[in-house]
Amino acid sequence: MLKIALLGAGRIGQVHAKAMVAGEDCRLVAIADTNAEAARNLAALVGAEQRAVDEIIEDDGIDAVLIATSTDTHSDLIERATAAGKAVLCEKPVDLSLERALKTLANAGKTGKPVMIGFNRRFDPNFAALKSAFDGGEIGRGELLSITSFDPAPPPVSYIEVSGGLFRDMMIHDFDMACWIFGSVPAQVTAHGSCLVDAGIGAAGDVDTAVVTMIWEDGRIAVVKNSRRAGYGYDQRVELLGSGGLLAAKNVLENTVEKSTAEGVVSAKPVHFFLERYMRAYEAEWSAFVEALKSNAPMPVTLRDGVAALACAEAATLSARTGAPVTITPDMTGG
Amino acid sequence: MLKIALLGAGRIGQVHAKAMVAGEDCRLVAIADTNAEAARNLAALVGAEQRAVDEIIEDDGIDAVLIATSTDTHSDLIERATAAGKAVLCEKPVDLSLERALKTLANAGKTGKPVMIGFNRRFDPNFAALKSAFDGGEIGRGELLSITSFDPAPPPVSYIEVSGGLFRDMMIHDFDMACWIFGSVPAQVTAHGSCLVDAGIGAAGDVDTAVVTMIWEDGRIAVVKNSRRAGYGYDQRVELLGSGGLLAAKNVLENTVEKSTAEGVVSAKPVHFFLERYMRAYEAEWSAFVEALKSNAPMPVTLRDGVAALACAEAATLSARTGAPVTITPDMTGG
Amino acid sequence: MLKIALLGAGRIGQVHAKAMVAGEDCRLVAIADTNAEAARNLAALVGAEQRAVDEIIEDDGIDAVLIATSTDTHSDLIERATAAGKAVLCEKPVDLSLERALKTLANAGKTGKPVMIGFNRRFDPNFAALKSAFDGGEIGRGELLSITSFDPAPPPVSYIEVSGGLFRDMMIHDFDMACWIFGSVPAQVTAHGSCLVDAGIGAAGDVDTAVVTMIWEDGRIAVVKNSRRAGYGYDQRVELLGSGGLLAAKNVLENTVEKSTAEGVVSAKPVHFFLERYMRAYEAEWSAFVEALKSNAPMPVTLRDGVAALACAEAATLSARTGAPVTITPDMTGG
Amino acid sequence: MLKIALLGAGRIGQVHAKAMVAGEDCRLVAIADTNAEAARNLAALVGAEQRAVDEIIEDDGIDAVLIATSTDTHSDLIERATAAGKAVLCEKPVDLSLERALKTLANAGKTGKPVMIGFNRRFDPNFAALKSAFDGGEIGRGELLSITSFDPAPPPVSYIEVSGGLFRDMMIHDFDMACWIFGSVPAQVTAHGSCLVDAGIGAAGDVDTAVVTMIWEDGRIAVVKNSRRAGYGYDQRVELLGSGGLLAAKNVLENTVEKSTAEGVVSAKPVHFFLERYMRAYEAEWSAFVEALKSNAPMPVTLRDGVAALACAEAATLSARTGAPVTITPDMTGG
Repeated sequence: MLKIALLGAGRIGQVHAKAMVAGEDCRLVAIADTNAEAARNLAALVGAEQRAVDEIIEDDGIDAVLIATSTDTHSDLIERATAAGKAVLCEKPVDLSLERALKTLANAGKTGKPVMIGFNRRFDPNFAALKSAFDGGEIGRGELLSITSFDPAPPPVSYIEVSGGLFRDMMIHDFDMACWIFGSVPAQVTAHGSCLVDAGIGAAGDVDTAVVTMIWEDGRIAVVKNSRRAGYGYDQRVELLGSGGLLAAKNVLENTVEKSTAEGVVSAKPVHFFLERYMRAYEAEWSAFVEALKSNAPMPVTLRDGVAALACAEAATLSARTGAPVTITPDMTGG
Repeated sequence: MLKIALLGAGRIGQVHAKAMVAGEDCRLVAIADTNAEAARNLAALVGAEQRAVDEIIEDDGIDAVLIATSTDTHSDLIERATAAGKAVLCEKPVDLSLERALKTLANAGKTGKPVMIGFNRRFDPNFAALKSAFDGGEIGRGELLSITSFDPAPPPVSYIEVSGGLFRDMMIHDFDMACWIFGSVPAQVTAHGSCLVDAGIGAAGDVDTAVVTMIWEDGRIAVVKNSRRAGYGYDQRVELLGSGGLLAAKNVLENTVEKSTAEGVVSAKPVHFFLERYMRAYEAEWSAFVEALKSNAPMPVTLRDGVAALACAEAATLSARTGAPVTITPDMTGG
Repeated sequence: MLKIALLGAGRIGQVHAKAMVAGEDCRLVAIADTNAEAARNLAALVGAEQRAVDEIIEDDGIDAVLIATSTDTHSDLIERATAAGKAVLCEKPVDLSLERALKTLANAGKTGKPVMIGFNRRFDPNFAALKSAFDGGEIGRGELLSITSFDPAPPPVSYIEVSGGLFRDMMIHDFDMACWIFGSVPAQVTAHGSCLVDAGIGAAGDVDTAVVTMIWEDGRIAVVKNSRRAGYGYDQRVELLGSGGLLAAKNVLENTVEKSTAEGVVSAKPVHFFLERYMRAYEAEWSAFVEALKSNAPMPVTLRDGVAALACAEAATLSARTGAPVTITPDMTGG
Repeated sequence: MLKIALLGAGRIGQVHAKAMVAGEDCRLVAIADTNAEAARNLAALVGAEQRAVDEIIEDDGIDAVLIATSTDTHSDLIERATAAGKAVLCEKPVDLSLERALKTLANAGKTGKPVMIGFNRRFDPNFAALKSAFDGGEIGRGELLSITSFDPAPPPVSYIEVSGGLFRDMMIHDFDMACWIFGSVPAQVTAHGSCLVDAGIGAAGDVDTAVVTMIWEDGRIAVVKNSRRAGYGYDQRVELLGSGGLLAAKNVLENTVEKSTAEGVVSAKPVHFFLERYMRAYEAEWSAFVEALKSNAPMPVTLRDGVAALACAEAATLSARTGAPVTITPDMTGG
């Protein structure tokens, strides 16, 4: 029975706590948060104990920590937890600074402790089925990948201001998906972003609508489309053209009812947002982490993967500013 | 080049005239109608000549007639045309009286001239694809067939009064579909009809909503559902459960556009009515008739098929009145 | 915090135990089974205690029992539990004998304790959405209801032999769905059953493929189709034609991936069987039971509903034997 | 009755000849081709006369010419026909050289005769329905447009060599679609092309897989994806995200049959290629041309539109070579 501690009792920490309960081979024993009361409340709900971060990291009885604190603390906590001999599952992104993330990659690497980055979408049953069909050769060689990822509504501008920008905060998921599906990091990224949804986002120096083209060494192409607002729900689709056909993962709808009237045929909308869409993915992510720990297998998403996605985000941020393509060099992804 | 005459210049006659134009190995040379002006107008449009029925039947230069007159004249015209050595394509139903239709079957049979009945749905590309997949063994043995056939809106009561009733007028298509798909005539029919759409239809002694269960000798089952009103368009679907799976022919929609908004995902309706849905079927029906004539092959839909569908309709009409199942005996379908 | 006991630790009992864990306002404290070890094992898993049925029924500390024992014990246990002052949630069917079920209805009624029957499908999010749209007037008056309910594969003949037959064992769900959707009991039922899937089922005196037509007093019609085998999974669909349109609840698919190749466009199958399809429904059913208990509200599915479905099943069984329609009289449904 | 002449009796000329027959207010009277026999054969089929190009252009009895000759003759023929007082419907592209096309725009403009460019996709019922819903305000302001356009199989390399390259030959349709839907010409184009399908295409200096991002002055974005090979048929989809929702035009499938077996649910493929998909569009295009001529209304697709699409293609070709975005200046589109 693995003993787990959760650092961060905010929204995403609560999601993970709930996902963990569903598992069987581990127990959530301690929760820390800068807001001690939030930690206490969540701890009471799931039968864990509220503790301080330092206590947790120094406690040899704890096998692994799940880092769900604010992004600016991720690198530090990864380094401290691995140095203390703990396995880590850290929420994305590793850091807002690629430079800092690369240092964390080096430091955590020296400890030999496993670090997994929480790219939950890889564990969505639909995307996982697409990846598995592709890896099984069902459409031959991959050629052209398209990822559509629209949020239902933009976050408040205050969130935008500390988010690192759309490419690091939102599209980082899609960069990881593209690298995961194609099995490697692109050679080049070209980005374009516009502010079409909320002028406040533009005033904060960010974009809310963006298209990025990623090119691999051998010519394969991925296109990622992001918008902060799709009035109809959370639009999360992947489409991959291969030499032998096309694989497409469609949206998950709220229900399967269709109404036909003189006005047309109406189906349900996509499920509203990431909790509805990805709860099963969080559970599967958690199982995969525990499974890898127990069997001493490589993590299904590595810290290096987290750095690679961040490198793409950094390149895209730069390209969107200059208009020119940005090359992703080996040193940007940890060599 | 086959020379064809059209008897009946009404709505369905015009459809056939248009379908014929699309073909290449035949020419529509003459059109007759009790309303000579209607015949003249249609003739002008398609480059044919307006003539009297008798003239046409006596004209040895005419190879085939298409009978699209009122139902009460079908039997007579089939008998006269075949007696005069002509091939016939006659609109459904053969007759409103099964007894009369059986006599026509006997009489036309003696002439040896081919008679095809216009069950256009067999030629719909979707239903034809379903039949072909089933005959190709793609779902094994057939077990349970379902036919949904709803009109967009009820006809005027004046039409109902001379229609022979829902089972003979509307469901006859579905009876033919069921016999065609299963390749034989059912042993028994149980029908239930209600008047739910238009009280005037009930006052005229007919029903507007009906369900019929057809049972074959070996236990196979078909269920047919009819309604005179589906507010969303012409609902024409077939579903066949077999020992190895299910085949389903869905509706044809007006277009492929989907609109996603906060209100849901809206697709186009089914195409409005039989002209929109079955124009291609009428063309294919016509080609099949000409093809069979040219190659001296058996007609793809025979007069006997028309009698069998009528026998089902007669049995269903009786069953709906009594509530009891009605057996279809060999003498009801011409032995 | 309501204290619940589970009678029956078999497959369906385990499903309920798991569904209960998801709830929050109640606790499963005791489990009984004729196989004490099975009860012990399940109890250990969910943190409950293995106890004898009699002990449970006599324990005033237990608020409600969930009856998931074999069908022939349902009536007895409902009567004993309600007599002992407990609320009951009993798996379907109430009994195989309508006569016995009617007696239970009378007896349990005298105690004034609430009894809910476990018709889980009403709680499926898709069917619930259809019902809610219909009740909200979105397609006007209901006219013609169609229920398709196919199992993926037939059960062993040994199961068939004690099942009460397809109409009482399998179609009883659909009878309840039809009564629920239309809000009342039909006036008449006509059934036809065939043995097409497994000759052993026929040898055991049962059918494996069946169609039932239900007619309401005012002419509304429902058609139910059952098959013990749909090679492609669990086929569970409902379609309702109303005066203003059509509502259709489609199947839930294993995932949303579509593969397009030269062979066609392939989607995932429907989820395999009732656990996959209805786990969420079992959870919602359980919540609804607890909610009604806590707020002293009427049960969302009553014992009378269970008797009505059984009356339909009895009528269908008779009709399938005689071929004739069977009238459902008020005394068959408890007056 | 308008008298029309067809220049070019090749594949696309034959398509137009067939589309014209479906119309009613015009007659195809003459056909010219450098291969006189091809012209004679087609003329015989449709009841027209084979004549020389010069004769046709000098014949005052001819109202309009349809130019379906090889691309390098388009500009010349547009200029000569308009100078001779004829209306023109010319196949896309106007020319392979933007410079030459701009001269034609100036020259034809001076004659005042109407010139329409044959961007058939605008007349596809699905794309037209999307455009009409968008123009009707159904999803608010347009923000992000996506066009997927994959051919079923690459053409021979010999065709590629004279095609002007993927951007001028294939993607020109999509450039026009984007300009049409958004109602204006983009400010900037960034293109990336790879050779992934056929090395021979790369050897000929062209690409077979490409992504282009188009940016409008106000920040709106369009992404176009092209591939010369989608093994499953002709993939032609458009998707438009607006401030109030999403409009998506899906593919047209060969039929509506779905087969469910243990292997999954199989639907029909998209219709194979442009003839199957766009025959109705060619008919509607032709009607629109005739309608505009008869009512003296502006052409629904102008020569200026043809030049704009060509400017986008030229910019994309350059961008794909350099990697950098290319600005579209007013002088590139005729001011």
